[in-house]
Amino acid sequence: MKLLDDDRLLPTEERPRRLARDLYEQVRDLPIISPHGHTDPRWYAEDAAFPDPAQLIVTPDHYVFRMLVSQGVSMADLGVPRADGGPVETDGRKIWRLFAQNYHLFSGTPSRLWLDHSFQEVFGIDRRLNAETADWYYDHISERLSQPEYRPRALFKRFNIEAIATTEAATDDLRWHKMIRDSGWDGRVVTAYRPDNVVDPEMAGFADNIMLMGEQTGFDTATWPGYLDAHRARRAYFKQFGATSSDHGHASARTEDLPQHEAAALFQKALRGECSPAEADAFRGQMLTEMARMSLEDGLVLQIHPGSRRNHSAQVMAMYGRDKGFDIPGRTDYVTALKPLLDAVGMRPDLTVILFTLDETAYSRELAPLAGAYPCLRIGPAWWFYDSPEGMRRYREAVTETAGFYNTAGFNDDTRAFCSIPARHDVARRVDCSFLASLIVSGRLGEDEAPDVACDLAYGLAKRSYKM
Amino acid sequence: MKLLDDDRLLPTEERPRRLARDLYEQVRDLPIISPHGHTDPRWYAEDAAFPDPAQLIVTPDHYVFRMLVSQGVSMADLGVPRADGGPVETDGRKIWRLFAQNYHLFSGTPSRLWLDHSFQEVFGIDRRLNAETADWYYDHISERLSQPEYRPRALFKRFNIEAIATTEAATDDLRWHKMIRDSGWDGRVVTAYRPDNVVDPEMAGFADNIMLMGEQTGFDTATWPGYLDAHRARRAYFKQFGATSSDHGHASARTEDLPQHEAAALFQKALRGECSPAEADAFRGQMLTEMARMSLEDGLVLQIHPGSRRNHSAQVMAMYGRDKGFDIPGRTDYVTALKPLLDAVGMRPDLTVILFTLDETAYSRELAPLAGAYPCLRIGPAWWFYDSPEGMRRYREAVTETAGFYNTAGFNDDTRAFCSIPARHDVARRVDCSFLASLIVSGRLGEDEAPDVACDLAYGLAKRSYKM
Amino acid sequence: MKLLDDDRLLPTEERPRRLARDLYEQVRDLPIISPHGHTDPRWYAEDAAFPDPAQLIVTPDHYVFRMLVSQGVSMADLGVPRADGGPVETDGRKIWRLFAQNYHLFSGTPSRLWLDHSFQEVFGIDRRLNAETADWYYDHISERLSQPEYRPRALFKRFNIEAIATTEAATDDLRWHKMIRDSGWDGRVVTAYRPDNVVDPEMAGFADNIMLMGEQTGFDTATWPGYLDAHRARRAYFKQFGATSSDHGHASARTEDLPQHEAAALFQKALRGECSPAEADAFRGQMLTEMARMSLEDGLVLQIHPGSRRNHSAQVMAMYGRDKGFDIPGRTDYVTALKPLLDAVGMRPDLTVILFTLDETAYSRELAPLAGAYPCLRIGPAWWFYDSPEGMRRYREAVTETAGFYNTAGFNDDTRAFCSIPARHDVARRVDCSFLASLIVSGRLGEDEAPDVACDLAYGLAKRSYKM
Repeated sequence: MKLLDDDRLLPTEERPRRLARDLYEQVRDLPIISPHGHTDPRWYAEDAAFPDPAQLIVTPDHYVFRMLVSQGVSMADLGVPRADGGPVETDGRKIWRLFAQNYHLFSGTPSRLWLDHSFQEVFGIDRRLNAETADWYYDHISERLSQPEYRPRALFKRFNIEAIATTEAATDDLRWHKMIRDSGWDGRVVTAYRPDNVVDPEMAGFADNIMLMGEQTGFDTATWPGYLDAHRARRAYFKQFGATSSDHGHASARTEDLPQHEAAALFQKALRGECSPAEADAFRGQMLTEMARMSLEDGLVLQIHPGSRRNHSAQVMAMYGRDKGFDIPGRTDYVTALKPLLDAVGMRPDLTVILFTLDETAYSRELAPLAGAYPCLRIGPAWWFYDSPEGMRRYREAVTETAGFYNTAGFNDDTRAFCSIPARHDVARRVDCSFLASLIVSGRLGEDEAPDVACDLAYGLAKRSYKM
Repeated sequence: MKLLDDDRLLPTEERPRRLARDLYEQVRDLPIISPHGHTDPRWYAEDAAFPDPAQLIVTPDHYVFRMLVSQGVSMADLGVPRADGGPVETDGRKIWRLFAQNYHLFSGTPSRLWLDHSFQEVFGIDRRLNAETADWYYDHISERLSQPEYRPRALFKRFNIEAIATTEAATDDLRWHKMIRDSGWDGRVVTAYRPDNVVDPEMAGFADNIMLMGEQTGFDTATWPGYLDAHRARRAYFKQFGATSSDHGHASARTEDLPQHEAAALFQKALRGECSPAEADAFRGQMLTEMARMSLEDGLVLQIHPGSRRNHSAQVMAMYGRDKGFDIPGRTDYVTALKPLLDAVGMRPDLTVILFTLDETAYSRELAPLAGAYPCLRIGPAWWFYDSPEGMRRYREAVTETAGFYNTAGFNDDTRAFCSIPARHDVARRVDCSFLASLIVSGRLGEDEAPDVACDLAYGLAKRSYKM
Repeated sequence: MKLLDDDRLLPTEERPRRLARDLYEQVRDLPIISPHGHTDPRWYAEDAAFPDPAQLIVTPDHYVFRMLVSQGVSMADLGVPRADGGPVETDGRKIWRLFAQNYHLFSGTPSRLWLDHSFQEVFGIDRRLNAETADWYYDHISERLSQPEYRPRALFKRFNIEAIATTEAATDDLRWHKMIRDSGWDGRVVTAYRPDNVVDPEMAGFADNIMLMGEQTGFDTATWPGYLDAHRARRAYFKQFGATSSDHGHASARTEDLPQHEAAALFQKALRGECSPAEADAFRGQMLTEMARMSLEDGLVLQIHPGSRRNHSAQVMAMYGRDKGFDIPGRTDYVTALKPLLDAVGMRPDLTVILFTLDETAYSRELAPLAGAYPCLRIGPAWWFYDSPEGMRRYREAVTETAGFYNTAGFNDDTRAFCSIPARHDVARRVDCSFLASLIVSGRLGEDEAPDVACDLAYGLAKRSYKM
């Protein structure tokens, strides 16, 4: 049997299905532009074989293990490392069996689509995962992972990735990116500038990180101008390793444009660890506007990823640490929050600010009207919980009528699950082609116009918006 | 003519319709599990004939009469009792005529589906209700209601109800449940523990109710530990009458986990009627966490039904009292509100907390991410204004991709309209089978996997989530 | 080629398409009732030829030019007048070319549908607009505009407009409406009472406008009773020119019902320019309730259009002034906000209050439950960014199940783009007929019942709700 229906996610009626399939045929083999993601640059640098199936597919992917946890499986039994280094399951086969016997939990979820796509397309599997096939799967995938064709660089080529961005902290030494460059390998792996650890006064190690940034750049980061110059220097350093964007993951979309002396005073307070929560929030907001101004100097695209209440469970945070699937979205306002930044630089057509959301209500109410007016703004693709067939459909339906296609920024896979990359882009291409087909059959788009739009959604917009 | 299309609510395209119909055939005759609702236990206890058609169908159902009121009909003319006992229409035929001549107002609403289902399936009617057929309807239904087959227990069996829960206040003596048990009738009617009147300091009679709870249990409810013990005792008493759940209808989802001495002090303030609105809110929030802890002791499932701004019209409240169709939903936050409870007991897989919402924006943004992570959480079905074809469709589309099917809790009819129970479950079964068919035809669910899911959505999940 | 598909916006499946088309055939030629809009009464008064194509179609329509601006085109190059009277492009042909070469930006937007409809149906054009056809279009439309059949009154008749409302400030002298009346022309053009400039203490010229209102009416508008009487007199004056409604565009839906002496004191503060923002907001809220009370006296329908954060960009506001496409919606609460007004007059069936929203989340959560209960409330049609196929579909899906059809108020085009009026009504009629067809095929509406509903949605509800 095939795990995947060839016509999956395409319309079911005859005419729209045919139109969508025709469009999809034109974009399915376009190279992948992956301008925002979290794959590990070390993979491409060392090109070592991936470890066992559980370590590749289950343990590092919070999409996968949080679903098992939600039904009572313990993280320790899935091999998720404990913060205190205490014992967790290390037998990959045991972890895999637990995953396999709970595979029905993923029915109807995008994880199921991504996993089946990896199983079929990456590993050539032709039977469904369940308790009975668990060991067969484990053996089969293990065997494949030992082959040179399953090393990261080989998969990178096989996945037809034209360019991929990883995400590194502002103080990262980019050693793996250096190693990739020095290796002479021609795969295009670039970094992105993620300064949360030197921009968020509430993050552990904030002041130390800023001191380190001083050492890295030679600027006196104990002063506001020196701190800003250090950012400029680090951004320039990241650009040497291909960075075309910075990225900012704040709890809200708040921006500020304080007078510089007030910003300087706030910075000093932050350095001393004396900011109230409100002041810390203001400082983060100020830094978004400073980053936008630096973008006008150096051309980096500014990405704002707001709205996640991270590490919601105190118990999980204490036992297992950050990024364990307990990041819960909340309501996010953009209209008031972005005004200071937009008043400062919003009308500049030489600036690109890409807005993401975890609050779908903002699509039609706030993001499309904003991006449909301000020249600097683009709407990022459906993100995280919405990187899914229904999520992407709702995104297009909510955004297009006000912002059109050309105020959107193409697709991001935003993943740390390497084998899911082709699956995710494939889902986006299918959903977008289906949406275009629905516009054609309802007389809202010319059949002759649709192929150009389809190619832009699959490839052109990501490449141009991110200057990749 | 038939009032109902046999294929109503199924997809209209040939292949999905066939798939949905096949699934529906497998679940349509499954017994009804009704784990949350508001039918009157007295009906099952006394098994008396229902009164006239207006008293059965119009006057007690705020879904029905609020629609007529919204177009200018007065409640008094519909026989809705006045709070002061003043005169209202008592002639059932007159009320019925008023209802019949306005029946077009229900076009496109679920009430229309439920009513037509009752007319056709319960009363065997084959013509549409309108001004011309009003009297015929009235006579026909009246005649049927006089027959023994239309008594509550006979209908209970005919409706194929395996188990139904009613909802009683914490201080209720459960006399009707006792009478049902003592009668030896084998219909399974259980109660549910609804302690709003002894948990909400702003509800009239709060302190008196707590004193009554003391008398009922022998605990000194003037003290915080005695008050908690009285809850434990009442919960145990409710369990004797089959209760498997408690239910809480607060304006928000706020929870608290205060130190016990602070909770005790707040309780004393509440008893003295001295709580500020903020303190009353905190006390209600504290009690949700206390109830969750008791659930860990006694196994009752905790249901949270937040978000209704009840009795919105001061004039309607003054003239007709509570529950008169003027309960209006508002925005509801879950992420911040539930954190204290979840930090206290959220990772316990032996606890079940079922979350409902009247704010659909919370489905994909908050409820699915929360239930897709915390082991104790399940998402209740589409509720109240959303217990409808479009509402249920949006619910599945918004919830499934993040939480899957197995973090949802099956269907609730939540009704006081007895004759609508089979109609409501039938609507849910049709909509869910249609959703599954749409997943199959778009390659997101195996045709061989769907029947198990369909049976779980129609029966298994309600039975297991509620331990029915 | 035809620019428009004859079956655009109808369902694509055979049976629903046939049903929708049959319904559409019954409503497509019904006269247009346009009870709320912003066309210029001077057009109908003077009946002069429209200026060049750019001045007709691009420069005055913020839907159109904001999309070009969002992609980096400057407003000055599109001929949008500067606030300081500085130089902007005046060559209509140059502006038109810029528009034409960016026409692909409108793919998937309702503007594209409206524009193509105007091109084909109003101007008889049979080729698509783009850089190559720009000059041909410009010449063709220019030539048509010089013909008498393209004068405003001729188009008014050709568009089959039975009645249209314009919107004038409370202090407007209604000279154009007088001129229309005096001309003896039989086209029905009525005004609507828009008192924002004498109701909003934060609007420039507030006190002066109130003094002017005093001169216009002979009442002492320096006193609260005189101010209210002046409103009564201006409303009566507007009624002489056909007004059937008042209209209120506030940032929120806040209402107040203060004791009259407090309202009077607040008014005095407002007159002196001493209101805090909170007090100004309270005053606007009080005036909504006062307007509702006057509506009970004089029968004007009260329209509330809340939720736009107007003139979001400080730079655009400074350079180009108000209404330049930078009005961004925000979250809007209705449940708490409307309670004072509803407690005062909400149960009166002789009052009509029509609620609009730019926050779609309010449809099912707040507006439908409110309008499905209070006799005075009706839900206005999908507005502004939602006056679109997807927007209208979501509106019907979200509103109908709770409020039915008869608590909605028919369609408004709300436009200042004259040539788009038939297009907008046509879109609404197609979308509504498609929605009704979907109800029929899913067994939720009788095929025999649908035509009456379709006619009410296209014509009857607008006429009756607005007393047109």
